Amino acid sequence: MTVLKAAIIGGGNIADKNHIPALKQLPEQVEVVAVCSRDLGKARTLADAHGIAHAFDSTTQLYQQCAPDVVVICTPNNLHYPQTMEALEHGCHVFCEKPPALNAQNAREMADLAAQKGRILAYNFQLRQTPEWQLFTRCKTDGLLGDMYHIKAHFLRRRGIPGWGYFTNKAMQGGGALMDLGVHVLDLALCALDYQVPDSVLGNTYDFIGKAGGKGLMGDWNPATFEVEDAAMAYLSFPGKASIMLSASFALNTQVDKDRNLELFGSKGGVKLFPFSLHTELAGELADVQFPYLEEVDIQLKNTAAFLAACAGKPSNVCTAEQGAILQEIIQRIYESAG
Amino acid sequence: MTVLKAAIIGGGNIADKNHIPALKQLPEQVEVVAVCSRDLGKARTLADAHGIAHAFDSTTQLYQQCAPDVVVICTPNNLHYPQTMEALEHGCHVFCEKPPALNAQNAREMADLAAQKGRILAYNFQLRQTPEWQLFTRCKTDGLLGDMYHIKAHFLRRRGIPGWGYFTNKAMQGGGALMDLGVHVLDLALCALDYQVPDSVLGNTYDFIGKAGGKGLMGDWNPATFEVEDAAMAYLSFPGKASIMLSASFALNTQVDKDRNLELFGSKGGVKLFPFSLHTELAGELADVQFPYLEEVDIQLKNTAAFLAACAGKPSNVCTAEQGAILQEIIQRIYESAG
Amino acid sequence: MTVLKAAIIGGGNIADKNHIPALKQLPEQVEVVAVCSRDLGKARTLADAHGIAHAFDSTTQLYQQCAPDVVVICTPNNLHYPQTMEALEHGCHVFCEKPPALNAQNAREMADLAAQKGRILAYNFQLRQTPEWQLFTRCKTDGLLGDMYHIKAHFLRRRGIPGWGYFTNKAMQGGGALMDLGVHVLDLALCALDYQVPDSVLGNTYDFIGKAGGKGLMGDWNPATFEVEDAAMAYLSFPGKASIMLSASFALNTQVDKDRNLELFGSKGGVKLFPFSLHTELAGELADVQFPYLEEVDIQLKNTAAFLAACAGKPSNVCTAEQGAILQEIIQRIYESAG
Amino acid sequence: MTVLKAAIIGGGNIADKNHIPALKQLPEQVEVVAVCSRDLGKARTLADAHGIAHAFDSTTQLYQQCAPDVVVICTPNNLHYPQTMEALEHGCHVFCEKPPALNAQNAREMADLAAQKGRILAYNFQLRQTPEWQLFTRCKTDGLLGDMYHIKAHFLRRRGIPGWGYFTNKAMQGGGALMDLGVHVLDLALCALDYQVPDSVLGNTYDFIGKAGGKGLMGDWNPATFEVEDAAMAYLSFPGKASIMLSASFALNTQVDKDRNLELFGSKGGVKLFPFSLHTELAGELADVQFPYLEEVDIQLKNTAAFLAACAGKPSNVCTAEQGAILQEIIQRIYESAG
Amino acid sequence: MTVLKAAIIGGGNIADKNHIPALKQLPEQVEVVAVCSRDLGKARTLADAHGIAHAFDSTTQLYQQCAPDVVVICTPNNLHYPQTMEALEHGCHVFCEKPPALNAQNAREMADLAAQKGRILAYNFQLRQTPEWQLFTRCKTDGLLGDMYHIKAHFLRRRGIPGWGYFTNKAMQGGGALMDLGVHVLDLALCALDYQVPDSVLGNTYDFIGKAGGKGLMGDWNPATFEVEDAAMAYLSFPGKASIMLSASFALNTQVDKDRNLELFGSKGGVKLFPFSLHTELAGELADVQFPYLEEVDIQLKNTAAFLAACAGKPSNVCTAEQGAILQEIIQRIYESAG
Amino acid sequence: MTVLKAAIIGGGNIADKNHIPALKQLPEQVEVVAVCSRDLGKARTLADAHGIAHAFDSTTQLYQQCAPDVVVICTPNNLHYPQTMEALEHGCHVFCEKPPALNAQNAREMADLAAQKGRILAYNFQLRQTPEWQLFTRCKTDGLLGDMYHIKAHFLRRRGIPGWGYFTNKAMQGGGALMDLGVHVLDLALCALDYQVPDSVLGNTYDFIGKAGGKGLMGDWNPATFEVEDAAMAYLSFPGKASIMLSASFALNTQVDKDRNLELFGSKGGVKLFPFSLHTELAGELADVQFPYLEEVDIQLKNTAAFLAACAGKPSNVCTAEQGAILQEIIQRIYESAG
Repeated sequence: MTVLKAAIIGGGNIADKNHIPALKQLPEQVEVVAVCSRDLGKARTLADAHGIAHAFDSTTQLYQQCAPDVVVICTPNNLHYPQTMEALEHGCHVFCEKPPALNAQNAREMADLAAQKGRILAYNFQLRQTPEWQLFTRCKTDGLLGDMYHIKAHFLRRRGIPGWGYFTNKAMQGGGALMDLGVHVLDLALCALDYQVPDSVLGNTYDFIGKAGGKGLMGDWNPATFEVEDAAMAYLSFPGKASIMLSASFALNTQVDKDRNLELFGSKGGVKLFPFSLHTELAGELADVQFPYLEEVDIQLKNTAAFLAACAGKPSNVCTAEQGAILQEIIQRIYESAG
Repeated sequence: MTVLKAAIIGGGNIADKNHIPALKQLPEQVEVVAVCSRDLGKARTLADAHGIAHAFDSTTQLYQQCAPDVVVICTPNNLHYPQTMEALEHGCHVFCEKPPALNAQNAREMADLAAQKGRILAYNFQLRQTPEWQLFTRCKTDGLLGDMYHIKAHFLRRRGIPGWGYFTNKAMQGGGALMDLGVHVLDLALCALDYQVPDSVLGNTYDFIGKAGGKGLMGDWNPATFEVEDAAMAYLSFPGKASIMLSASFALNTQVDKDRNLELFGSKGGVKLFPFSLHTELAGELADVQFPYLEEVDIQLKNTAAFLAACAGKPSNVCTAEQGAILQEIIQRIYESAG
Repeated sequence: MTVLKAAIIGGGNIADKNHIPALKQLPEQVEVVAVCSRDLGKARTLADAHGIAHAFDSTTQLYQQCAPDVVVICTPNNLHYPQTMEALEHGCHVFCEKPPALNAQNAREMADLAAQKGRILAYNFQLRQTPEWQLFTRCKTDGLLGDMYHIKAHFLRRRGIPGWGYFTNKAMQGGGALMDLGVHVLDLALCALDYQVPDSVLGNTYDFIGKAGGKGLMGDWNPATFEVEDAAMAYLSFPGKASIMLSASFALNTQVDKDRNLELFGSKGGVKLFPFSLHTELAGELADVQFPYLEEVDIQLKNTAAFLAACAGKPSNVCTAEQGAILQEIIQRIYESAG
Repeated sequence: MTVLKAAIIGGGNIADKNHIPALKQLPEQVEVVAVCSRDLGKARTLADAHGIAHAFDSTTQLYQQCAPDVVVICTPNNLHYPQTMEALEHGCHVFCEKPPALNAQNAREMADLAAQKGRILAYNFQLRQTPEWQLFTRCKTDGLLGDMYHIKAHFLRRRGIPGWGYFTNKAMQGGGALMDLGVHVLDLALCALDYQVPDSVLGNTYDFIGKAGGKGLMGDWNPATFEVEDAAMAYLSFPGKASIMLSASFALNTQVDKDRNLELFGSKGGVKLFPFSLHTELAGELADVQFPYLEEVDIQLKNTAAFLAACAGKPSNVCTAEQGAILQEIIQRIYESAG
Repeated sequence: MTVLKAAIIGGGNIADKNHIPALKQLPEQVEVVAVCSRDLGKARTLADAHGIAHAFDSTTQLYQQCAPDVVVICTPNNLHYPQTMEALEHGCHVFCEKPPALNAQNAREMADLAAQKGRILAYNFQLRQTPEWQLFTRCKTDGLLGDMYHIKAHFLRRRGIPGWGYFTNKAMQGGGALMDLGVHVLDLALCALDYQVPDSVLGNTYDFIGKAGGKGLMGDWNPATFEVEDAAMAYLSFPGKASIMLSASFALNTQVDKDRNLELFGSKGGVKLFPFSLHTELAGELADVQFPYLEEVDIQLKNTAAFLAACAGKPSNVCTAEQGAILQEIIQRIYESAG
Repeated sequence: MTVLKAAIIGGGNIADKNHIPALKQLPEQVEVVAVCSRDLGKARTLADAHGIAHAFDSTTQLYQQCAPDVVVICTPNNLHYPQTMEALEHGCHVFCEKPPALNAQNAREMADLAAQKGRILAYNFQLRQTPEWQLFTRCKTDGLLGDMYHIKAHFLRRRGIPGWGYFTNKAMQGGGALMDLGVHVLDLALCALDYQVPDSVLGNTYDFIGKAGGKGLMGDWNPATFEVEDAAMAYLSFPGKASIMLSASFALNTQVDKDRNLELFGSKGGVKLFPFSLHTELAGELADVQFPYLEEVDIQLKNTAAFLAACAGKPSNVCTAEQGAILQEIIQRIYESAG
């Protein structure tokens, strides 16, 4: 098996803690050859910390000097589109952080170019690799759930507006709680419905708390520069009548600090994802099933491996370019509905 | 104070256990003078059991012989409209069971006729009288919640398709879980938003489990004659951007047997209704407030008293004819959206 | 359907609270025509309390005057044998309280005579009618458990030596905790193994606490007249290698006041009976299944109905004469092993 | 005090993590001078890791070059016998891992040779050093328990067939769950009965799950090479009527992942060992006693110290050669009973 | 045994629900012959309800016509003194409700007159009959506690100012929370210290909440007529250095609705009374002992029986006249300390 | 801002783990220049470990060679007075460990000299910096509590007599549980009452367990040399009628191992400190408020910073010299009351 050469674009935390460590654990498939960041010092430090040969502050140099097979994009949201397009143009496979892009049009172009170039473009939705999601998939495949017809998905924080980074900057992030948190559970919900495109989308966004300020549980934020939504609610209706209720918040006056979950209802059984429980009929009685021994896994490692499997033409459950385009379009329709 | 003469139309359980006992506890305001049912024997038995003078099987006779001031309508949903119209035409105040009618047009006509006749028409949504709802109202009035902008309301049963009555008969009930259960929590949610009319409504209805059959927790139902929805999901968006997520089910593969609750989110505080908890900031910190000594009350008695207060021209929190018309219109829009 | 005429022999609590009320709820199948007790006053009082026509203090008179179709025997253990034999001789079906008899020889004769006379002889092991046991049976039938190979069965009390009746009198009871309590769970365990006869039996009995005296939780007992075992432990090994561990106590220095349970282990799944839980593999993972909506039933009513079904030649899960003989033989082998 | 010279035979985990660290913490009594393993590299690595002078792959060389006073045997079960015999022949004290041997005959010879040579042979049953067992012993000595007459002992795993080592190899291990797990709790149960020899032994062994395969919680095992019992059940009856119920499993369809416990019943009090609770009468009432401040101890260190105390002729609670022979005989009788 | 003739003085709840039912259950010792109340109708009603022959509204008539042997005084606190003195003058035994009197001087005179007349005067502190207090006494007697040296006693309500009766009227009650609630736990604490007289008493009383008004949990009270303390705190120091911390409240901003408990510390063991737990050393370890099977008893029945035992010259644990005088003196010293 | 030069007197644990690390985290305000201990080696080791320049075994040398601005006193209680006086005489600010001194007279002199010299003298009561106490202060300031009138404060250990140090030596410590533990919660209680001087003090001390010996949970202590109180109980009454109940123990037969808490009752609200809960009325109902997101802080760091703020003339909540003198006087009055 050929060992692919990988380059990392972006010198922040997600590169340092997630992508590089995962890639380093798969030496038979991939070798990280370069890190590229606008801040050369940051790139250098990161490269040194992980024993990576090259550091750049220009992607032009990167492509000239290293000719990577694979590019991993770990930059702010507004850079996903241009950097992915550039990488595809250089014939690279691309593993891009979520969300795909700032808008539907960009995500569509990215998918189209990947198809045209015959390269893998994938997005890093790691929750697909949780043992809970794997078990849901197995239950669905084994026929324990019947037809899936309704999903409640939420990713809520009570006062979790990040006090660092660009999370409240609209131009760089494209949005707030929906763009940063909601996409994770929306991706799973869409998987459960085989990534259909919804007929109708209705939603609202809010910024009462973000703009008013208050006690922060993830650092202090500045209400004066808060430009995104602190909460987004939406309803999606699909061709076969299936539906999704989606809730995402950075800040909401709810009891729980952080709450991320999905409930997935099928004609024969329903699942609550975290912790996993199955509700169905067994032996003629209503039954609740627990699976107490699900093993914790390194979800980033598994998702990186899934991306590499796709690159190698093997079966993979990574989020595809096409799925990313559909997801981004739905996000856009929610924002448009919210006005 | 004049003692009003009241007549009961409908000889079933709701008359026997709810309305008549409540009216009997308010003798200074009202006297029950007659019971009317299609089945004269039933009417007679009920009247005797409660010491009521007259029993009829014809409303014509009822109005001729008793000239009631107040009519309480406890019949199946399809009779609410004709019987209310008849009572209003006879100049009576009307206390009608929920839902108001089978469709929006009927409920609108009922409200218009009540206005024209200068009579009180009210609907029996008793949850408004729970101590939890009263406390929510007090918190809202005292400014503890700020602007209300999102409400999650649900009334879910796992396998609670009633094995008796007409609950699965579409012609008589007009619908299933939404019509029977969803209306209760929708009424509260609408109250929290000052009973605005939504801009947009999106929803779906399902009948997988109802039509497939299975283990029943409220008696056995017949899947072959199951004509209504076993679950309904909807999203309402209001002019000022507020939103409601509504879920109702007779049958759903969820863990909990019966689950009825509302979460109401405002800019300064949020409330979970059952059991009541308030989530806000106090003394500069995030605070969760419990009220452990809420007193249980007889919600039917309080709602009947509220209706009579309205009849006497006093302040009342009973569901008005106008509110009933708005509610019924929303129900209809949900069904239309669901197709 | 013919209505059978039933006579009750024995005027104690078990007749008054269990058998007569159950029989009275099945008027289309059976009519209680007489009560017979050594104490005529007791018989009379009982008959009057339940609206039963006849009372006797002699079974001879009973058979002469009433010619019952069915006899229910609710007397002390030492009378089960002679009264059952007499009833069978009179051509009656017999529903006899547990345990079958004082020894294996008697129980064998009872079964043989019933077979010879073509009459139903059954024993009142009501735990067979619990919803938990019914669900176990359904799980076993549906193949969820595989081959059953080990059962732990216990019925333990910490200080539950009854302070009334003949429970500590060896001549009348034939034994102590094993005879009174152990038989219930042993019967279920044997059912799970299709009522095979064990190859080997090893057991012990104790009377330390019974003979020493102390604090009683079911009244005060007299250590000076304590003649039976306060605890019995046994192990049964069956032809196909299956095994049962059996524990029964009136008194044992354990934490729990009263503890009655079975754990039943099969090759594919295991069950803990109270509260019912199933432990197996599902969707490739170890799964624990709860059934939260088992309905409480009147187990005496169901067992009486099962006996009557047997009398009517219908399928029945009541404990048969043959099973009772096997059970009694095992009890005897345990006592013999204990020495 | 003379410092004894100790040699370790066996280069696996138990030597590395248990015995050597314990010995190193007792430098005034013992010095580890050598490690011996069939794999010299392993011996060398282990010796270096712990700062031990010599490493061998031959016991002959070991005895020639080092002349140890003490030998600690940490090899697979089938080597316990020959290596212990050899060590005793060389005049060494021997601290041998459990179980003593593959069969009763070998364990008996080992005890006899130790007695003949006047050397200490002891087995490493560390549970004797748990604070719970120490407290049980103190309660028994203080008369809080009276006469001990029944013990329930179990060591159960749900799917704990080890996926490494020789645990499923009959020739090397001599057995499965009973040999590996059951011996620990059996040793304690026998201590509670003063290590009497039972009159009767009845037992069964099973391998349904081991041979069928499935989800493993301690790694994956190979059902094709599974040769031992995955579960063993036994009942022991003793001269004074006392009894032990013993259960051990690598795999059983039970709820709990790992469950190791003993309940010990005496005439005056009973004990549940983990967590320790005492059930008795106090001040004329039934009392449950908790001891919430038992201190955690290093049970291997304490057991090693107990072995060295025995070597020094001091009082010791370590498992003696004679006890090991009795234990091994009982194990053999269980296997013979199981057929 | 002579059956004593008893008269009840006071026609309220405590007579109706406590004293008369208890006396009626002891027919071999006592017969209730009369009820006396200022309100003759009330006396008549009560007498009829319980099948008592005579009813009076004058104690003069009572003594003339009935010549009772025993008088039970169930009137407001301010009547305890005159009515007890009158009864003793008539040669009656007296069972008087708590507290003994409005002040120390009266209670002392009552005790002196009882001694002079050779009659039993006892006070109805029923908590002495709880199984918890009986067990404490047994533990103390059995030496499990050593020397008692400190007691924390409290009887706290959060908003339990009674909305009925005279509880907030100083002239009739003599005080508030201390007089009504505190006396119960103070009596037990004094028993534990053998009813010594304290050297020093320091205390405070408060009425912030009582005078401010607010939400009531035992009905609504009128802050305008609130004359007593809503909370009292005190510390008592005894000759042998023992001490009591006493807290009583009708209203206090604490979490618990109603909280009544004692902690009693001795040199060898300590007891928390409700639920009973013993904290000591056993088998060389710190031990917590629970007694899970204490039997509920009818504490009024037992206390009435204890009073009658005293009348019959038998051992009794009822609160004596002398103890009542000591208690009342302490109460007075607390109020004086509080100023 | 000038960086102050600080010297540490005392070479024990409190210097090493608390004061020096805190000072090192505030380099812009303070530099630690010297450590002084009777044991020069200890001083040297400590200085080296923390990178401090100088080490002394004589304060004379310290003042001569280093001329510190700030002195931190971490020595046994009996040295607090002489070393503080010496430091003040040298014109230093002093941060002294608790308790202030061995008696009231010394603490008074210390405060007077600090005032005379115009230097800050402060005591290290770090609990003032807990987020719970800060929140209490905020609640009090925001008017949520009304007038404070009663406080229950305790710091209890079950068997926590330290097995190391001088804790049981009266001459060096001045007392036992009150001096070591009680002072912490007494300081908070006094703060809540604005550090008033009490009118009356009543208390007792005990040494039953300390002198008897037994199981220790913080090492083993020697009962033969136990000279201090193992428990102290006291009641303080203040001019405005407010009161404090104080309990402190090294050893007490109570259930909990370690229990430190305050309950603070005000006219409008009450607070339980650990974990913090507020009990009050809100929206017309009794309300319990939890604050689930209080952030853990480094209380020593915050208290050191508060001391330095005081030195810099800024607002500070550190315990002042005057407060320390009041506290010490109260301690002395408790001991005098106890006799």
